[in-house]
Amino acid sequence: MELTHFDEEGRARMVDVSDKAETTRVATARGKVEMQPETLERIRLGQIAKGDVLAVAQVAGIMAAKQTSNVIPMCHPLAITGAKLNFEIVPPGTIEIEGIVKVTGKTGVEMEALTAVSVAALTIYDMCKAIDKTMVIGDIRLMEKTGGKSGHFMREDHIS
Amino acid sequence: MELTHFDEEGRARMVDVSDKAETTRVATARGKVEMQPETLERIRLGQIAKGDVLAVAQVAGIMAAKQTSNVIPMCHPLAITGAKLNFEIVPPGTIEIEGIVKVTGKTGVEMEALTAVSVAALTIYDMCKAIDKTMVIGDIRLMEKTGGKSGHFMREDHIS
Amino acid sequence: MELTHFDEEGRARMVDVSDKAETTRVATARGKVEMQPETLERIRLGQIAKGDVLAVAQVAGIMAAKQTSNVIPMCHPLAITGAKLNFEIVPPGTIEIEGIVKVTGKTGVEMEALTAVSVAALTIYDMCKAIDKTMVIGDIRLMEKTGGKSGHFMREDHIS
Amino acid sequence: MELTHFDEEGRARMVDVSDKAETTRVATARGKVEMQPETLERIRLGQIAKGDVLAVAQVAGIMAAKQTSNVIPMCHPLAITGAKLNFEIVPPGTIEIEGIVKVTGKTGVEMEALTAVSVAALTIYDMCKAIDKTMVIGDIRLMEKTGGKSGHFMREDHIS
Amino acid sequence: MELTHFDEEGRARMVDVSDKAETTRVATARGKVEMQPETLERIRLGQIAKGDVLAVAQVAGIMAAKQTSNVIPMCHPLAITGAKLNFEIVPPGTIEIEGIVKVTGKTGVEMEALTAVSVAALTIYDMCKAIDKTMVIGDIRLMEKTGGKSGHFMREDHIS
Amino acid sequence: MELTHFDEEGRARMVDVSDKAETTRVATARGKVEMQPETLERIRLGQIAKGDVLAVAQVAGIMAAKQTSNVIPMCHPLAITGAKLNFEIVPPGTIEIEGIVKVTGKTGVEMEALTAVSVAALTIYDMCKAIDKTMVIGDIRLMEKTGGKSGHFMREDHIS
Repeated sequence: MELTHFDEEGRARMVDVSDKAETTRVATARGKVEMQPETLERIRLGQIAKGDVLAVAQVAGIMAAKQTSNVIPMCHPLAITGAKLNFEIVPPGTIEIEGIVKVTGKTGVEMEALTAVSVAALTIYDMCKAIDKTMVIGDIRLMEKTGGKSGHFMREDHIS
Repeated sequence: MELTHFDEEGRARMVDVSDKAETTRVATARGKVEMQPETLERIRLGQIAKGDVLAVAQVAGIMAAKQTSNVIPMCHPLAITGAKLNFEIVPPGTIEIEGIVKVTGKTGVEMEALTAVSVAALTIYDMCKAIDKTMVIGDIRLMEKTGGKSGHFMREDHIS
Repeated sequence: MELTHFDEEGRARMVDVSDKAETTRVATARGKVEMQPETLERIRLGQIAKGDVLAVAQVAGIMAAKQTSNVIPMCHPLAITGAKLNFEIVPPGTIEIEGIVKVTGKTGVEMEALTAVSVAALTIYDMCKAIDKTMVIGDIRLMEKTGGKSGHFMREDHIS
Repeated sequence: MELTHFDEEGRARMVDVSDKAETTRVATARGKVEMQPETLERIRLGQIAKGDVLAVAQVAGIMAAKQTSNVIPMCHPLAITGAKLNFEIVPPGTIEIEGIVKVTGKTGVEMEALTAVSVAALTIYDMCKAIDKTMVIGDIRLMEKTGGKSGHFMREDHIS
Repeated sequence: MELTHFDEEGRARMVDVSDKAETTRVATARGKVEMQPETLERIRLGQIAKGDVLAVAQVAGIMAAKQTSNVIPMCHPLAITGAKLNFEIVPPGTIEIEGIVKVTGKTGVEMEALTAVSVAALTIYDMCKAIDKTMVIGDIRLMEKTGGKSGHFMREDHIS
Repeated sequence: MELTHFDEEGRARMVDVSDKAETTRVATARGKVEMQPETLERIRLGQIAKGDVLAVAQVAGIMAAKQTSNVIPMCHPLAITGAKLNFEIVPPGTIEIEGIVKVTGKTGVEMEALTAVSVAALTIYDMCKAIDKTMVIGDIRLMEKTGGKSGHFMREDHIS
């Protein structure tokens, strides 16, 4: 019934996944925040005035996983069934972030895992920016993805 | 277990759809924005200062489809599986908007399609209001609906 | 400091209003929902199963006024200072909706008033769609706007 | 694939419910607002300046049920299939609130029912605070829960 | 310009505060969660599977303060300038919660403080409900309010 | 009036900025997305199935700037007065993203600019992930910040 003369010049749409199977899907993403060594030390010692940095970043990342489809325009809404974030403090000046998201659904949760990691990183920046404005967020990438028709994806440098 | 003496004087509720079947459902809605001919011409030529009007309206409409149950009080939350918006520029002064939304769920997506069209229309208004405050949004209506117990609905004037 | 060679090919931006004066601004918008006479009669008599239609539509519209900048991409966030919606039942089959929004701010509230009216209309549709799918939302337009540099705007057909 | 040396010192996560069965689940919660007798009388008579208090509280509570997973950090997003709120005016100065939420899903809707009741209570406070700042919200508790592996829960004092 | 014949039968509106002065305003609210003594003990020892209960509740409450006007229908949006939550573990089975919110604005932040406390309490419930479904949230009340035309309010039992 | 015996063991709070001056503040952030050369080429040629990648990313980034305080837990809500995003396609495989946000307020907009860039980058990932799962988002950093008591900050490598 769609009007064939309607304008479709390459504009955006949310891809139709109605016919895809509901399967269990898992995605793992990672990223990091690079900072001054003394900033890292103060996070580790719990001396940041705004509070326990990683505890807040963890909550922020998990809540962001749930907001993904409201923030990324063409993402499908998904009722995720699990989400967690892990942090590793790597001296002298790095925090590694890992986000793992699960769903039973018609499409994958890569964006949810990447969004969780990004928002956790931004939260670390926010909590510490009063003492260090030069922090850099980077290496945000998909590590692994299982479930769905496209099968298993594992990043080649995912050797840990 | 519900208290029978509790007040139920016609106040609102989200209707219980727990026992409805999960089926694939599609809804198509349309609407239009009427404007000065020169406003339409400037949209067509990409001369609106705020940016490419229809590209922004399209993103806005798709994102709004996902927000429908947060905006319309008694709407059920639905994990929509597809959404798109088409535009037709109809000289001298009309933009026709069509929104199509799909879901596999227990209730239909009429409201999602109507909300997508309404927000796309409001976005067109917003992008152009600096040059034309007299635009009128109208004819927002459900064209067609498939899936669900109530069966196929097609608006009689849906002849294109 | 902005990179001059950065791509700016007409893409969208939120216009900079930093230098505009904070003034009291008011906007009035209107719209209507056309329906079957018996649908209107059942709204009037409070016989719609989902609840008191206009009471719910009023809350929805006011809440939507506050969500405007989250829904319309290039709208500025504004701390509105007042919002109300009025309804007029016009037999045989029309509900007229009027939305009035106020702010003390750097930019106007036309979009807030138009969004409030649109969402109120969509809510009326939602509450009644089980009995009438042919309702049409229309004539959504700015009636009047005061405050701000562009001065007083009043729609010519605003004669009531 | 998860890094075993990643920090997991008791920080928060959204529990993985991927392997739980989808069943129909219902939760009932209750709470109350205590106020001055004359405040209650003015609510009953519809003399509160901000509007019909219970009608607004009802819409607010139902919309809040849908927002639960955006507000409570470790809650799973759920596409609830029904929600309603009942109020009982209990002179001299109490409004009892009951919220009932349903879902077909992998986890229960206790938090949705409790959130609906809490937000309805906060809305009653907001609508009346101009005349009574001493209102107290209390006794917010889960009354009953059915569905899911943990079986039927009914609060012992749930005898009405 | 408002239509005098428009229906205004006591329906809700967001009260116009355009003419109120911008002053610094502070509100303090309190509430509590009653639980089984062993639940409290496990919170204190950090033995709840979902994570550090009070750390998550604190983030949830602060984020909720910012969402107040999106959740409570007639609340004005306010750019709050500070928010914090304090917890006191009171054996055998109580957690006391205190929320303090500040703003420089045209209206007070009672609702923001009360909402922060309520959502912190709901989050405590959520984090512990796997081991204790009988928790009760109560005594949510405004303790003190400064700033604004209505002057200083202090609850009589606020003697600590 | 705050209870001195209340628990304040380093938990998080939104810092009180009530006494800071309202000044005009601007922040510029940058980041990039690294991808396969053919992915970049298809973006440039408009051959990505989901639509015009940079147009969607731009809308997403601007909308995200407005959502910053809802996503980053301890961020103050701010009524931003302007936001824009620029993109530079840098063969063989990089898209550079620049976000500039303005406000007249009591605290800066670094987080808004960084969030806008991050969400634009995530959107690029989402639009292209069907053809390239190995994209990496990186170098997200604050370039420059003006306004506020802490004065002018410019990143040393900000030499363009």
